[in-house]
Amino acid sequence: MPYEFKAVRRVEFSETDMAGIVHYSNFFRYMETAEHGFFRSLGFSVVMDHFDPPVGWPRVRAECDYLQPLRFEDEVEIHMLVSEKKPKSVSYVFRFRNLNANPPVEVARGGLTVVCVTRDDEGRMKAAPIPKEVADRIEVAPPDLLR
Amino acid sequence: MPYEFKAVRRVEFSETDMAGIVHYSNFFRYMETAEHGFFRSLGFSVVMDHFDPPVGWPRVRAECDYLQPLRFEDEVEIHMLVSEKKPKSVSYVFRFRNLNANPPVEVARGGLTVVCVTRDDEGRMKAAPIPKEVADRIEVAPPDLLR
Amino acid sequence: MPYEFKAVRRVEFSETDMAGIVHYSNFFRYMETAEHGFFRSLGFSVVMDHFDPPVGWPRVRAECDYLQPLRFEDEVEIHMLVSEKKPKSVSYVFRFRNLNANPPVEVARGGLTVVCVTRDDEGRMKAAPIPKEVADRIEVAPPDLLR
Amino acid sequence: MPYEFKAVRRVEFSETDMAGIVHYSNFFRYMETAEHGFFRSLGFSVVMDHFDPPVGWPRVRAECDYLQPLRFEDEVEIHMLVSEKKPKSVSYVFRFRNLNANPPVEVARGGLTVVCVTRDDEGRMKAAPIPKEVADRIEVAPPDLLR
Repeated sequence: MPYEFKAVRRVEFSETDMAGIVHYSNFFRYMETAEHGFFRSLGFSVVMDHFDPPVGWPRVRAECDYLQPLRFEDEVEIHMLVSEKKPKSVSYVFRFRNLNANPPVEVARGGLTVVCVTRDDEGRMKAAPIPKEVADRIEVAPPDLLR
Repeated sequence: MPYEFKAVRRVEFSETDMAGIVHYSNFFRYMETAEHGFFRSLGFSVVMDHFDPPVGWPRVRAECDYLQPLRFEDEVEIHMLVSEKKPKSVSYVFRFRNLNANPPVEVARGGLTVVCVTRDDEGRMKAAPIPKEVADRIEVAPPDLLR
Repeated sequence: MPYEFKAVRRVEFSETDMAGIVHYSNFFRYMETAEHGFFRSLGFSVVMDHFDPPVGWPRVRAECDYLQPLRFEDEVEIHMLVSEKKPKSVSYVFRFRNLNANPPVEVARGGLTVVCVTRDDEGRMKAAPIPKEVADRIEVAPPDLLR
Repeated sequence: MPYEFKAVRRVEFSETDMAGIVHYSNFFRYMETAEHGFFRSLGFSVVMDHFDPPVGWPRVRAECDYLQPLRFEDEVEIHMLVSEKKPKSVSYVFRFRNLNANPPVEVARGGLTVVCVTRDDEGRMKAAPIPKEVADRIEVAPPDLLR
């Protein structure tokens, strides 16, 4: 469905820290894994250099609540849902589940708002309408899935 | 003052991404730079293995709003302020300023909530009161600074 | 075969730098992906806390030659081969191939030497013989594969 | 002297791994810290977009020998020396010293070879002569310092 995507990653050794758990900043990398997989599932790359003008997707807001630690070699499912679509921005929520726990358990919950931008002649980014062929493919998830 | 700390970093090449700006996940690493510098300024390390029992400080919430991109070799000031102190947790806010802009400009604003934990015999983390000698050193910033 | 392992990863956005290519330090993370997958394929985790005493595998040497850039969303195959086995250390070579190139092309070639260690009471690491059940499972690749 | 540079960093929490030491891939980031500081000390940025054509410095070889672990909050000195200068490439060696050890101790030794490149119309990188004003500023370290 064009309002969600699930990615699965195995936690890498280099993603852990000396507390023996995944460093909290890496959850924001994991969010991108799902977001970019979502774009590919729609037939796009998030790097949209072939549009005229090329568009990019910088983040304007990111957040994460951590419920349980994640450890080396855990398999984590990142479930991304589109929570909001505006003319120039999209918001996602993310649920992280540790598939190695028995039963699988939610370990974190995140959110991201990204803005569609083009660049002026000096490389400065400026918010721009999401290209129609992209916007048409993105749906907002049903409310009951976002609760 | 035991309610704030300022750290300055120069953006590293490895912290940029193909969009030519600092990858958004790195702002969460920058937050820690200031937080850990704050602890050192109080005479502690955030790694408190010498306490009995040893305590750790996992994050339970992290957030960031991005206002302006940050680029390679920019000097960024990370201004951390204690926004809340509870028996078992502390919250911080962070203001990121690009010192290379003229005049320096705020590029992001973040927040972090960390919980004091000990570990049981199986290594599971459990919230615990902040050791008194640490709690006594941490103040909440005046409200006008947090606005 | 217990002398090689192939892992495939898709290049993440956060692994690129402002030059638009994978930052060179990430190839060393990719090497670990294959190494740890190799251990799992033998029925072990590289984190061997269940041995008495627990053993670890710090790196004593790492190297990489870069032949071609790797870009966002490229699928890279990391082919690991055991090149040497000593009583207390193992060496690997790595061939990185970009599977998105047509035909797939070698983009880098790496090497790693890891040492088996235990820790003394103060946490200092000391080289130790590889546990027999591990050493017995690891073979050195045939010479013609290592050329 | 235009053949060496010393940078000092304090090890960040996010640079450690679950073994409690700096992840080995981060030494390659530390090398860049010194290399880019070296360029700044010569009056250049390593990002040379103002040259016509713009030049870049991709790595063609990287290596590191690890002698001692480096831990959270250790201050590490990265001493970079130019070991070779060719028309289109430069090689450096790096000595890493833990300044928190008493006395300070060498913890790693690294090497890097970088090539000067320009890009063709399709963005492909091609080795190119180092711009004269840059090449003129870079000296090779005396042999006794490189031993």
